[in-house]
Amino acid sequence: MAPPVTVNTINPKVIECEYAVRGEIVILAQKLQDEIKIKLEAHPFEEILYCNIGNPQSLGQQPITFFREVLALCDHPPLLDKSETQGLFSKDSIQRARKILDQIPGRATGAYSHSQGIKGLRDTIAAGIEARDGFPADPNDIFLTDGASPAVHMMMQLLIRSEKDGILCPIPQYPLYSASIALHGGTLVPYYLDEATGWGLEVSDLKKQLEAAKSKGIDVRALVVINPGNPTGQVLAEENQKEIVKFCKEEGLVLLADEVYQENVYVRKKKFHSFKKVSRSMGYDEKDIHLVSFQSVSKGYYGECGKRGGYMEITGFGADVREHIYKLASVNLCSNISGQILASLVMSPPKAGDESYESYISERDGILSSLARRAKTLEDAFNKLEGVTCNKAEGAMYLFPRINLPEKAIKAAGEAKTAPDAFYCRRLLTETGIVFVPGSGFRQVPGTWHFRCTILPQEEKIPAVVTRLTDFHKRFMNEFRD
Amino acid sequence: MAPPVTVNTINPKVIECEYAVRGEIVILAQKLQDEIKIKLEAHPFEEILYCNIGNPQSLGQQPITFFREVLALCDHPPLLDKSETQGLFSKDSIQRARKILDQIPGRATGAYSHSQGIKGLRDTIAAGIEARDGFPADPNDIFLTDGASPAVHMMMQLLIRSEKDGILCPIPQYPLYSASIALHGGTLVPYYLDEATGWGLEVSDLKKQLEAAKSKGIDVRALVVINPGNPTGQVLAEENQKEIVKFCKEEGLVLLADEVYQENVYVRKKKFHSFKKVSRSMGYDEKDIHLVSFQSVSKGYYGECGKRGGYMEITGFGADVREHIYKLASVNLCSNISGQILASLVMSPPKAGDESYESYISERDGILSSLARRAKTLEDAFNKLEGVTCNKAEGAMYLFPRINLPEKAIKAAGEAKTAPDAFYCRRLLTETGIVFVPGSGFRQVPGTWHFRCTILPQEEKIPAVVTRLTDFHKRFMNEFRD
Repeated sequence: MAPPVTVNTINPKVIECEYAVRGEIVILAQKLQDEIKIKLEAHPFEEILYCNIGNPQSLGQQPITFFREVLALCDHPPLLDKSETQGLFSKDSIQRARKILDQIPGRATGAYSHSQGIKGLRDTIAAGIEARDGFPADPNDIFLTDGASPAVHMMMQLLIRSEKDGILCPIPQYPLYSASIALHGGTLVPYYLDEATGWGLEVSDLKKQLEAAKSKGIDVRALVVINPGNPTGQVLAEENQKEIVKFCKEEGLVLLADEVYQENVYVRKKKFHSFKKVSRSMGYDEKDIHLVSFQSVSKGYYGECGKRGGYMEITGFGADVREHIYKLASVNLCSNISGQILASLVMSPPKAGDESYESYISERDGILSSLARRAKTLEDAFNKLEGVTCNKAEGAMYLFPRINLPEKAIKAAGEAKTAPDAFYCRRLLTETGIVFVPGSGFRQVPGTWHFRCTILPQEEKIPAVVTRLTDFHKRFMNEFRD
Repeated sequence: MAPPVTVNTINPKVIECEYAVRGEIVILAQKLQDEIKIKLEAHPFEEILYCNIGNPQSLGQQPITFFREVLALCDHPPLLDKSETQGLFSKDSIQRARKILDQIPGRATGAYSHSQGIKGLRDTIAAGIEARDGFPADPNDIFLTDGASPAVHMMMQLLIRSEKDGILCPIPQYPLYSASIALHGGTLVPYYLDEATGWGLEVSDLKKQLEAAKSKGIDVRALVVINPGNPTGQVLAEENQKEIVKFCKEEGLVLLADEVYQENVYVRKKKFHSFKKVSRSMGYDEKDIHLVSFQSVSKGYYGECGKRGGYMEITGFGADVREHIYKLASVNLCSNISGQILASLVMSPPKAGDESYESYISERDGILSSLARRAKTLEDAFNKLEGVTCNKAEGAMYLFPRINLPEKAIKAAGEAKTAPDAFYCRRLLTETGIVFVPGSGFRQVPGTWHFRCTILPQEEKIPAVVTRLTDFHKRFMNEFRD
């Protein structure tokens, strides 16, 4: 009897789905790492330098002390009644933990919460959004989730009925979007960010792509905007955001705003504006636009990826549709409570006068200013490489340099049955231990090649990354020079 | 312009999906609770007694101290270097936290882990499975997940291609299964548990239902077995499990074994046997049967629902299929690290000689023996009610009594456009504050009516539940007596 499940009998949508950020190159990197662990001289490098994923703490970034103090106290509340605790924890972390426990029904951090998340924590988050935007936020619009990814899946599940439903996505895009659209059986409708203008988003291109999709019978349901950009690192100008909001209103599109990098802005002349603030400042309210904003505890200066916390703020949907979103949230019961607590903390960090305030500011600013320096160093290094151009990382955690590969390299890639940028990244990995993600994993303008590099290796490792990359690149270009 | 998203334009699979455990009755209960908070005399009861969901800590069950000590130390590792910590934490919790941190790359509890979960924790879990079963377990077969629900979704996503793919599910069933099958667009193929024999599972019925589905052109891909049963509370006999395993092998079905209640067995003559152990003891190995076992930190004596931890152990699938399962896990990056740590702890609790061992045993046995007493008290109370019969809760956290409703009540329910058991549960809620879930939410033999009641209210509350229920039931039966 044939085995019941083979690749020929599983859901073809699963096969179609791709996720390069943890794909082939990364799996190879893990293999090399295991080999080095057994035999240090197995490869021409002593460690793997993971620049593939926005995972700051895996590369040595330390968590914010105040956040972890609060989490530890909430995990083990009997600590709050012990005198030794005063010496071990900051005063405001103790106060905050008490306040959070009071907000949790029965102080039970081990209980399933309300499907949208603990109401008191949603109150705190809504207050944080109000303070950020200057416009009201309703705790009943907040759905706490295990990071932003499950929230994106939930919206795709809601919106996509068949392959005739399209979602406008930036190209290049974070592959969560292409993966989620593929898994839910919809169609990704691409719009292209303009590399020549620093990954600018032209509404004229949006219009063109929307019309092209419509003419193919695609019902375009939503527009995804990632701001600050992933993998592209640009920060949208407020004027540009207004055009996008107007476009969504006029075309009847849900605006899915991926705003997980809202704290990661590295240039003085740019500032993060939430799409909710922008649309409200234009006088648009709930009845004018369906807007979903995604936030995560994984990014920012906090970088708490492993805690899987995040939320989406949903505005503009009718009460009956909201009931179905609530039901979807209910089927998975609730997001994890530590992640929920952390989401409330990142939206309400220590304030001036709190005991932890100074250490918090110093930790936060230390991380953000170091990220800005690392972005600049890597950007400069890329721009010095033959045939490579790299836009500024205004925000987020990535650079997405373009590489003009020699014809001979493209031909060699073809013979190896791989994309030219994947060919480059694989060689880079096996020769230097550096892990980049090929641009083809994010999609790109056909005929152009890129890779994504995070700015996350600790500062003392950046010179090694630059040296190894530069030496490799010279060798590679010499080998394949036409 | 019409709003872009209405109930008429969302994914019909979302509309079709139902999840009674957090459905209509529970939403009403939350509303009543809010009303009582504002005005204590708003309703004829002073508190809502939630018996709708297996959420022990929401009803006052305390977490296991050792587990929470370890979690707190892992959340805030600087505690490990402080002398005060020795006085605040047990010795073995400090040792365990150090060991776990050593297993986490870079000791980074805030980093995304390997998509399947931290390797060292999977090693611990595999060792725990081996100790439980007496057969080897491979850490590479373990996928750590945010509770068991996402694991079930992942398998449904893998197996279901269209409505022509069927999944055999027990009736009554835990509504996660019907919800997940609906969301992924498959067909639930029912098999009926026999109430008259204590919710027995007859392989002859499985065969009959399989053939009936095949004759309708359904490709049945998997069999779901929940053991101990939810909502039915039965514990399968080993001989019965062998028949099920043989049936799956012969029919080429994936066996999806929901074993989240493996620690919840309340009768001396029954014992939990994992399906993996049963199949290996029959001499069946990887090539004979595709088997997935689900486990969770939410149930057992631990009841850590809010931590969202769990795992699935996947055996028998080919390497190429496994790669796609790995990719599905990767799209959501990883499960939360606290949940991962907790999953390793429940599969490896303190051992004799450890400082925490005695308190751990006393906490564990206190919870389990109390649950057994509560189950018995409620079972007896149900069996005393006119027209109600209730099987023994051998395991899990529920009773699923059957109620023979008077014709007049069934008619009144019809007039109220609701199922008769939902009509009963709604009246019970509004008159007593007790929350049961109507049997129709779990599906049942047509023409029979049930409700699910958890055994989780704290012991001192059980007499009030019994009195209120008994009084209500008398009034209800008198009102609707034919």
